[in-house]
Amino acid sequence: MSTHKGRGVHVLGAGVTKFGELWEDSFRTLIGQAGLAAVKDAGIAGDDIDCLYVGSMSAGRFIGQEHVGALVVDEAGLADNRIPATRIEAADASGAVALRQGYLAIRSGEADVVVVGGVEKMTDVMDQEQTNTLAAALDQEWEAFYGATFPGVHALMAQEHMRRHGTTREMLAAVAVKNHEAGARNKKAAYPFTITMDQVLRSPMVADPLRMLDCAANVDGAAAVVLCSDEIAASSSAKPVRILASAQASDRFALADRADITSFAATRAAADLAYRKAGVAPADVDVAEVHDAFTIAEIMALEDLGLYEKGAGGKAAQNGLTSLSGEMPVNTSGGLKARGHPPGATGLAQVAEIVAQLRGAAGERQVRDARIGLAHNVGGSGATAVVSIFGRE
Amino acid sequence: MSTHKGRGVHVLGAGVTKFGELWEDSFRTLIGQAGLAAVKDAGIAGDDIDCLYVGSMSAGRFIGQEHVGALVVDEAGLADNRIPATRIEAADASGAVALRQGYLAIRSGEADVVVVGGVEKMTDVMDQEQTNTLAAALDQEWEAFYGATFPGVHALMAQEHMRRHGTTREMLAAVAVKNHEAGARNKKAAYPFTITMDQVLRSPMVADPLRMLDCAANVDGAAAVVLCSDEIAASSSAKPVRILASAQASDRFALADRADITSFAATRAAADLAYRKAGVAPADVDVAEVHDAFTIAEIMALEDLGLYEKGAGGKAAQNGLTSLSGEMPVNTSGGLKARGHPPGATGLAQVAEIVAQLRGAAGERQVRDARIGLAHNVGGSGATAVVSIFGRE
Repeated sequence: MSTHKGRGVHVLGAGVTKFGELWEDSFRTLIGQAGLAAVKDAGIAGDDIDCLYVGSMSAGRFIGQEHVGALVVDEAGLADNRIPATRIEAADASGAVALRQGYLAIRSGEADVVVVGGVEKMTDVMDQEQTNTLAAALDQEWEAFYGATFPGVHALMAQEHMRRHGTTREMLAAVAVKNHEAGARNKKAAYPFTITMDQVLRSPMVADPLRMLDCAANVDGAAAVVLCSDEIAASSSAKPVRILASAQASDRFALADRADITSFAATRAAADLAYRKAGVAPADVDVAEVHDAFTIAEIMALEDLGLYEKGAGGKAAQNGLTSLSGEMPVNTSGGLKARGHPPGATGLAQVAEIVAQLRGAAGERQVRDARIGLAHNVGGSGATAVVSIFGRE
Repeated sequence: MSTHKGRGVHVLGAGVTKFGELWEDSFRTLIGQAGLAAVKDAGIAGDDIDCLYVGSMSAGRFIGQEHVGALVVDEAGLADNRIPATRIEAADASGAVALRQGYLAIRSGEADVVVVGGVEKMTDVMDQEQTNTLAAALDQEWEAFYGATFPGVHALMAQEHMRRHGTTREMLAAVAVKNHEAGARNKKAAYPFTITMDQVLRSPMVADPLRMLDCAANVDGAAAVVLCSDEIAASSSAKPVRILASAQASDRFALADRADITSFAATRAAADLAYRKAGVAPADVDVAEVHDAFTIAEIMALEDLGLYEKGAGGKAAQNGLTSLSGEMPVNTSGGLKARGHPPGATGLAQVAEIVAQLRGAAGERQVRDARIGLAHNVGGSGATAVVSIFGRE
């Protein structure tokens, strides 16, 4: 492997807290729990850790705290080790972007063991302030200021996708039903129960055509992973999973500036690069966690990731193709929909699920003989996307 | 050079906006101006850029905008290139922490040309909200909630430094006077004029012993640099400057948890590592930009960086040692004090000054035959510190 290829990077361990409205937990205790779980799972000691990355979308507004890298390294008991701690923010892609920075730190040769955490504590903030803060992931000056909200822009995408690609109201609902089927088997999920098609279709309208049960609810939670170099992975008794690629891409910030709102260009670009770097094709993917902030977003993700043809994403869930026992299991954790969506944590909770699947440790949710897994995390209305591909070792 | 040493990284260009209360400029236009200036200075084209990093402390609270990486890549006209854009937050060390991520991206081999920008737009926010937001760089739960402010915690440090090390009120004032002497020669500075010792000593009390003219004022502004690999630097007609090391370290978050508040342990750790990686000693440093958010902070920085013995930092400015014509010129740009302090931009404005000095392009502020330069950026009350060392090529 040449210098320019960089070193290999592996996930040595992962940890996820219970997601939900966690009144007894704070930002600090949540990230502490997830980090500790990941470190235990990896079988490393605190002194092995070379640096920390923390993904969080809006600690400044949700808990009045910036500088959360410093907070986390202290909470972890590692401040006296003087290791760097860096906070990454990319709206609800913060977790995956943080993962990629940890990946780059190891590839650069400046670190051998990196802990990457993601966290959001937001349910004890008033509803209107939550909505306004989430809209800060959109273009504040040209979208949010004029009243655009997160569900609103996704409703526009859904309308156009239905008009151009024949996607139906029932296809959207099938995504929610399918993800709750998987999520009912995930004890960490905020909403670990099944729902029916009828319930989705009768749930209150949020932004036409999206109803309440089309929307992933924002909750509290944290997730963390331990990354390591080839040398550390080779000598570990944990079950490492190899990161075959981690690619990030951008799109025009405001929806109005995009040529096509039925597709995320950033997802397509990140996927193309990730497949190329990993040397795998969409058909090689055995299990995927994709960013279903809204049911329409999962349908677009399936198409943008090349898992299904454009316009075929809507039928995938309806026809059972993406269920746990389908040909292409998607969101086996329950996805953002059933697991809940703490913006900073989601990208790393996805990685934790893929790691469990590739280790064969996903219990009732296990996909048979999963060898290649993919995680897809989106920021805001798609201006940032990260696609990471993982391989069983 | 072995794989583990990674590739060399160079600064190919730098740009800084005017700092100040910039009512005619927005977050967008400021970072755009700085980025464009840096790209022009580097002599590169937009299509050469592999990724962006943006340091910003609290865009969420100051301008209601998170996800600012996506905003900046779009404003730069590079969204259609799909390149990754990542926002870094580490309070007022955001700029230098972003620089270090750009440095790691090149060392990892995943990028050859990286633009790193830092920006804050904050003066059009009410005074009390500014103070509260800046206090979000401290421990919100254990410090800010009980009324601690940014000047307040630095006043505690100053009191203890005076008690234990004999530092006097006049020594503090001499730092401000000295930095304004240099800043008066910097057209980009927010406060490009000289002040007298008497003016400092008679300025309104903020937090005993710190008076108004001991405090760096927070302003609007942006700065950016272009980083590149060895190959690009070798073939460039710009005057590249080599990054010999960039090291980041952490300390306990709350002041009450530190054994000694007259010193920043994170600065000491980052400096030790940076000197070691760069293979230089403090005595080799020809020019330094240090984080003088308050006059006491520059005195502590001189000591923690090993430029002066503990307890000798106070006399350095008073005796003219750290002035433009002194033995160890510090804050030749005017420092945070005279240049003004936009938290996200400061760390990169420091780098721009060091680059100008090592290129021999600092005009009236030029330090003769500067070969080794150091930049020192601190987050909050010292829980994060970054020390980067640069060498003339």
